[in-house]
Amino acid sequence: SRSINLAVIPGDGIGQEVVSEGLKVLSAVLPQDVKLETKEYDFGAKRYHATGETLTDADLAALKQHDAILLGAIGDPSVPSGVLERGFLLKLRFAFDHHVNLRPSKLLPGVATPLAGQPEIDFVVVREGTEGPYTGNGGTIRKGTEHEVATEVSVNTAFGVERVVRDAFARAQARPRKKLTLVHKNNVLTFAGHLWTNIFNKVAAEFPEVTTDYIHVDAATIYLVTDPARFDVIVTDNLFGDIITDLAAAVSGGIGVAASGNINPSREFPSMFEPVHGSAPDIAGQGKADPTATVLSVALLLRHLGYDAEADRIDAAVTADLTERAGKPARSTSQIGDALAARVAG
Amino acid sequence: SRSINLAVIPGDGIGQEVVSEGLKVLSAVLPQDVKLETKEYDFGAKRYHATGETLTDADLAALKQHDAILLGAIGDPSVPSGVLERGFLLKLRFAFDHHVNLRPSKLLPGVATPLAGQPEIDFVVVREGTEGPYTGNGGTIRKGTEHEVATEVSVNTAFGVERVVRDAFARAQARPRKKLTLVHKNNVLTFAGHLWTNIFNKVAAEFPEVTTDYIHVDAATIYLVTDPARFDVIVTDNLFGDIITDLAAAVSGGIGVAASGNINPSREFPSMFEPVHGSAPDIAGQGKADPTATVLSVALLLRHLGYDAEADRIDAAVTADLTERAGKPARSTSQIGDALAARVAG
Ligand SMILES: CC(C)[C@H](C(=O)O)[C@@H](O)C(=O)O
Ligand SMILES: CC(C)[C@H](C(=O)O)[C@@H](O)C(=O)O
Repeated sequence: SRSINLAVIPGDGIGQEVVSEGLKVLSAVLPQDVKLETKEYDFGAKRYHATGETLTDADLAALKQHDAILLGAIGDPSVPSGVLERGFLLKLRFAFDHHVNLRPSKLLPGVATPLAGQPEIDFVVVREGTEGPYTGNGGTIRKGTEHEVATEVSVNTAFGVERVVRDAFARAQARPRKKLTLVHKNNVLTFAGHLWTNIFNKVAAEFPEVTTDYIHVDAATIYLVTDPARFDVIVTDNLFGDIITDLAAAVSGGIGVAASGNINPSREFPSMFEPVHGSAPDIAGQGKADPTATVLSVALLLRHLGYDAEADRIDAAVTADLTERAGKPARSTSQIGDALAARVAG
Repeated sequence: SRSINLAVIPGDGIGQEVVSEGLKVLSAVLPQDVKLETKEYDFGAKRYHATGETLTDADLAALKQHDAILLGAIGDPSVPSGVLERGFLLKLRFAFDHHVNLRPSKLLPGVATPLAGQPEIDFVVVREGTEGPYTGNGGTIRKGTEHEVATEVSVNTAFGVERVVRDAFARAQARPRKKLTLVHKNNVLTFAGHLWTNIFNKVAAEFPEVTTDYIHVDAATIYLVTDPARFDVIVTDNLFGDIITDLAAAVSGGIGVAASGNINPSREFPSMFEPVHGSAPDIAGQGKADPTATVLSVALLLRHLGYDAEADRIDAAVTADLTERAGKPARSTSQIGDALAARVAG
């Protein structure tokens, strides 16, 4: 009999609320014969304040036993900027080699967008997750003096770039439009830019059906607001991916519906799924958070574990829910979760 | 008697067309007693193909003699990516220490924007121009092999950050709303992030009237499309500034109207003014390019040289022209230039 052994990390702020709804929908969608086991972990600001710890070796060993990880949100104004980000979120992505950071963007009918004219938006960003300017390489000399120098080193390897580029080509190949866009800044960041561009062109030869193009990251932000329909699959580095996926979320319904997966396709380590939004401490505990992004992250999780039919049911439920909900009064976090759970169970 | 000794670099693609109109408006707006001298330089793809040169020491010595530089656009598909960018554009910014890269965004009444609901947009980005990931630091080992490693080093100095932060505070202080936002990614790029944040907070103490806030670059792209009215002055690093100013241009009327100044406030070297757009080889020579961005760059140039009244006249002419032009058939490059020249002369 089948089973899913899930690590659940509610985290900070609205994390607990949205994760509860995600689990509600997950339970509702799974067939009877699939045994769902969950174990909750208390990472985040509370644990950091209590123990000074963010993510220990023992924590990593425990998390490694799971099939996948569902995360709500990590971050609180009481913790200095960077401590939980570098000490937990990025540490986990690097430790578990989450090199495919998958962020789909789809503007559903009736969903509000800041763009005029309700353009067609349906693309996926494959963001590299373990290299680039995110490695923590760099340092500071003469800190706090007028002679301080701080460096940040973007590290890019053929190994790291090729595997994510290959993953993106395979995803493009599997989609109807079969188009892949490389986003970088190869006219300025020429060392990394040449590496990315050369590997992209090399791998392209193996996927003759996939149409390719290249655009600079600055121009990509223009297209995301003037012509988002031009994108099908985008592959890009860690930092550019961070920036353009927030913009992509904003134009395609907002961060309330933006899901993401931090994926290790080799399955050597469990992959982690999380909404793109943060912990939003200003609305925490009020039942105002939209759990849709978490529910869609559960769908990505299911797809990763091979439960494609269940993932499809969640996606369809969200589409139906958002379409019907357009223009109606706002619902609470649990009302939205209930509605989605009812739809996927039905 | 007063004089302006201007270096003119038409460059590639539509550069020649838009620069002609910029000069037309400049001549029309200047009072009789100001002697305008211009000298044209042939930098760009043609010179590169003919001589292999992009910008020599002799060129820099010649350019240094001018009061300011007006640039059209540099770049052509016949030249490998990075050659003219690093070899000319960035070389010039670094050689002349253009550390204040000034990019105003203002959505004028009636001007088309991809955003719904015609939001209020009136802010200025002060982008650092001589540091960050743009220094060319970094390198490649084992090039072309499966073991290639390419690095890009972002270099940030207290000296470089403080001078641009101070410039931005002074600009915020001089504007009615007196608000300055620091945009960075200090939760991930903690070395550079701490330097920027600490200096920002230190200089803030000297400008008690200026309201300050901080947002991450990824979140900034969201606000630029959902709530651009929240911005007054933004200060940010070289790469983040590159990215968000293209997005800012897109939402506030498009790159056809986005102007920029590469400024050395010490006046030790001439400052350079240029439209944000590129050389657009696809429409070059057809009279289709909008010279408005170049004309607005001429206004920035005049303001930099102390001709505030003349700069105001250009800004007013552009506002009137764009407002009246809304919905009317497209005009040619020279028709727009003629209309603006007539307005400023009138
Ligand atoms: C919180 C931060 C470390 C993270 C990132 O920069 O990757 C976030 O912005 C994201 O996109 O998941
Ligand atoms: C062409 C390129 C070097 C340049 C930059 O990245 O600064 C351009 O994008 C700009 O914004 O002026």
